[in-house]
Amino acid sequence: AGLTHFDARGQAHMVDVGAKNDTHRIAIAAGTIRMKPETLAIVEAGTAKKGDVLGIARIAAIMAAKRTSDLIPLCHPLALTKVSVEFSVDAARSSVHCTAQVETHSKTGVEMEALTAVQVGLLTIYDMCKAVDRGMVMTDVRVLEKHGGKSGDWVAP
Amino acid sequence: AGLTHFDARGQAHMVDVGAKNDTHRIAIAAGTIRMKPETLAIVEAGTAKKGDVLGIARIAAIMAAKRTSDLIPLCHPLALTKVSVEFSVDAARSSVHCTAQVETHSKTGVEMEALTAVQVGLLTIYDMCKAVDRGMVMTDVRVLEKHGGKSGDWVAP
Amino acid sequence: AGLTHFDARGQAHMVDVGAKNDTHRIAIAAGTIRMKPETLAIVEAGTAKKGDVLGIARIAAIMAAKRTSDLIPLCHPLALTKVSVEFSVDAARSSVHCTAQVETHSKTGVEMEALTAVQVGLLTIYDMCKAVDRGMVMTDVRVLEKHGGKSGDWVAP
Amino acid sequence: AGLTHFDARGQAHMVDVGAKNDTHRIAIAAGTIRMKPETLAIVEAGTAKKGDVLGIARIAAIMAAKRTSDLIPLCHPLALTKVSVEFSVDAARSSVHCTAQVETHSKTGVEMEALTAVQVGLLTIYDMCKAVDRGMVMTDVRVLEKHGGKSGDWVAP
Amino acid sequence: AGLTHFDARGQAHMVDVGAKNDTHRIAIAAGTIRMKPETLAIVEAGTAKKGDVLGIARIAAIMAAKRTSDLIPLCHPLALTKVSVEFSVDAARSSVHCTAQVETHSKTGVEMEALTAVQVGLLTIYDMCKAVDRGMVMTDVRVLEKHGGKSGDWVAP
Amino acid sequence: AGLTHFDARGQAHMVDVGAKNDTHRIAIAAGTIRMKPETLAIVEAGTAKKGDVLGIARIAAIMAAKRTSDLIPLCHPLALTKVSVEFSVDAARSSVHCTAQVETHSKTGVEMEALTAVQVGLLTIYDMCKAVDRGMVMTDVRVLEKHGGKSGDWVAP
Repeated sequence: AGLTHFDARGQAHMVDVGAKNDTHRIAIAAGTIRMKPETLAIVEAGTAKKGDVLGIARIAAIMAAKRTSDLIPLCHPLALTKVSVEFSVDAARSSVHCTAQVETHSKTGVEMEALTAVQVGLLTIYDMCKAVDRGMVMTDVRVLEKHGGKSGDWVAP
Repeated sequence: AGLTHFDARGQAHMVDVGAKNDTHRIAIAAGTIRMKPETLAIVEAGTAKKGDVLGIARIAAIMAAKRTSDLIPLCHPLALTKVSVEFSVDAARSSVHCTAQVETHSKTGVEMEALTAVQVGLLTIYDMCKAVDRGMVMTDVRVLEKHGGKSGDWVAP
Repeated sequence: AGLTHFDARGQAHMVDVGAKNDTHRIAIAAGTIRMKPETLAIVEAGTAKKGDVLGIARIAAIMAAKRTSDLIPLCHPLALTKVSVEFSVDAARSSVHCTAQVETHSKTGVEMEALTAVQVGLLTIYDMCKAVDRGMVMTDVRVLEKHGGKSGDWVAP
Repeated sequence: AGLTHFDARGQAHMVDVGAKNDTHRIAIAAGTIRMKPETLAIVEAGTAKKGDVLGIARIAAIMAAKRTSDLIPLCHPLALTKVSVEFSVDAARSSVHCTAQVETHSKTGVEMEALTAVQVGLLTIYDMCKAVDRGMVMTDVRVLEKHGGKSGDWVAP
Repeated sequence: AGLTHFDARGQAHMVDVGAKNDTHRIAIAAGTIRMKPETLAIVEAGTAKKGDVLGIARIAAIMAAKRTSDLIPLCHPLALTKVSVEFSVDAARSSVHCTAQVETHSKTGVEMEALTAVQVGLLTIYDMCKAVDRGMVMTDVRVLEKHGGKSGDWVAP
Repeated sequence: AGLTHFDARGQAHMVDVGAKNDTHRIAIAAGTIRMKPETLAIVEAGTAKKGDVLGIARIAAIMAAKRTSDLIPLCHPLALTKVSVEFSVDAARSSVHCTAQVETHSKTGVEMEALTAVQVGLLTIYDMCKAVDRGMVMTDVRVLEKHGGKSGDWVAP
């Protein structure tokens, strides 16, 4: 069970997916940014009224999903058919959670696109709030679910 | 103490940094990816011999630092003068840690560039190992230190 | 008849086009840049002889069509199968007209690609002539025709 | 008074600005998109409550300003120090007006960056509303003011 | 037998490939960089131990293949299904040879993607070694083989 | 005399140029594409009349110079102050020669930008003529001159 991104001599390549079928593929990824309660209060206020941090982070996340193959060296360029990004405010943990769902009808999966959307969504929140809270931490970025393709369904345990 | 990325009416803008001085600015960010011990063993083996996961992730991280202002909506484009990226294998926690240091001599800081380098470095490790370990988690992505500019030195507590 | 780019809660998303068919889709867009007669004379001279403003604007327009999904947040990335760009000099109105035709065989239309080509074509003319005529105005940028897909043919009234 | 973007033989080049001074340069550009009154009503509703078309168009416009030298062939890459974008709803003309202000402290001006921001801001409005109003027209895109550099102040007549 | 990238009036366009079939297409390109024997010795040492010039050049080459349609004005954007890049050290000619193989299942061929990968692979070697050998020369960049599509197989004589 | 792009442990980094001075730096690079005499005849005809292969290749080369730090992993992003690209037709060798001159007033040199411009200029010629001549060869791509910076003047022997 070696890494498919290397050939027999250990040299990196963009794996041949030419023989794979164009099937409906879905990936859902999630992640969290922890911040001070007073920072979270500003983010929440903005969502309702003005200074819409999460609205901007959502746009950045969606656009980043489309740039994934530019950023990740061995990722295949794919025609994405859907990208949606959700944020939820978790006052108990003084955090914002982000979930991204990406879909395609192509020869390979979109986990990397979903993870990239989450990462850039969280980074954008950091950028917009860093003037008041430099110590925010982005954490628990992971794939939650994956559907379609030869390996079929996978759900994080 | 509102968010500087919004004007008085709550509209997003790219903040005016024209009056700031060109000074030497440094940011150090870090983050971690947790994986199965057997995945970590493959990564470690590759570093020494072939299938160099961390070497490729380092290149992706450095290149991503240069793309930061393309990804983060309100980030200023900056002429980076240095980018270095370190990985260390932590067998006790079955993790790889990533640290990125970015420098510039410009009008604004480079925390976002350092964080983007870390995120994309970790994402690239995920991409290269996902065929054997879909459940890896990226975590603890944060700024460790920041130097230069009007706000001076800041070190994470 | 709400805006399809928002979900039921008003959050932006990249619309799911996965269930749409790959069909032949065509969009034609147009626009105009008005300038001083003496600027138009220089543009016309260049086309015939040297300093080919319109030849360069055409290349910029074609390349921009390919960058559309990088620029427009909720646009789907598409494999364009044809891009052509025409300019015509209108001495009576001291203007250059630009028309762009874009085609694809995909799940969604290419109006945005055709409009982006026109906008960047006109912007490039502005850039090349601004040293002699800062007051040029770009105007009447619109979709002229659209064919293919479920909504079928549409021609501007 | 030839076009500076061509050399003596009529060949395009990126003009030498090396001898120019790094000065504070400002450009303000504007443009308009006309739509049906019922479309304008949806845009206005969204700004206040949900489905924030103008908020998203503002982000697209700011990001596009940073991509200008990628799009316009002979434009110099510049470190922008400020980008702000305003929209105003004009019910009388059933239109949205967009104004962009861009600043730098560099060797050349930022008119193209301001114009590109306006164009992509208007394009994004078109994209988000096209499902309900395909006949929108983008118009009157022009430079309003320019300050700084050897040519000094210029205000559109 | 004119150039297909121009229409009947000599105006550039992105050729219509809409009527072509999606078939399996392969292109192989190659090229060489000549350097001083002592530079070649450093490159060879690095491959085995540390300072892996060729590993980094391979990643740059693969990533560049994905950027081809951004760089070459009239190139169609394509979903690449495979990219592999080989380097071989030729001590007799004090050179490194690069070969790139690119594949797709699309409407047009991938020669440009293979050539771009080779060019950027060689450029990256130049960049990494230029501190010790400014006189390196990149040479013999060409297509070796092409398969698939209406024109069928072609092998360089 | 090791490679500066690696640290003491052999790990790649983007070299620290922060302590270098902003000085006027110039690089000139050149390269050649060889083709069949009948292909060269078409290129020459186009330059004079229509189907302007070299005009388009010049634009592609200039734009590519601006993308260099996106393509070459360890290249610093720089504010280029001048880019010019020349082509000359060499009937005796059935070739087109390309020369690119790039300038900046920054902390590091622009050899890579000049070389990238040449490579992409030649690639664009290949793309535009490949329908009539698949066997063209790009060759002798190299730096001719370099001025400015601590290492001063260098002219290829």
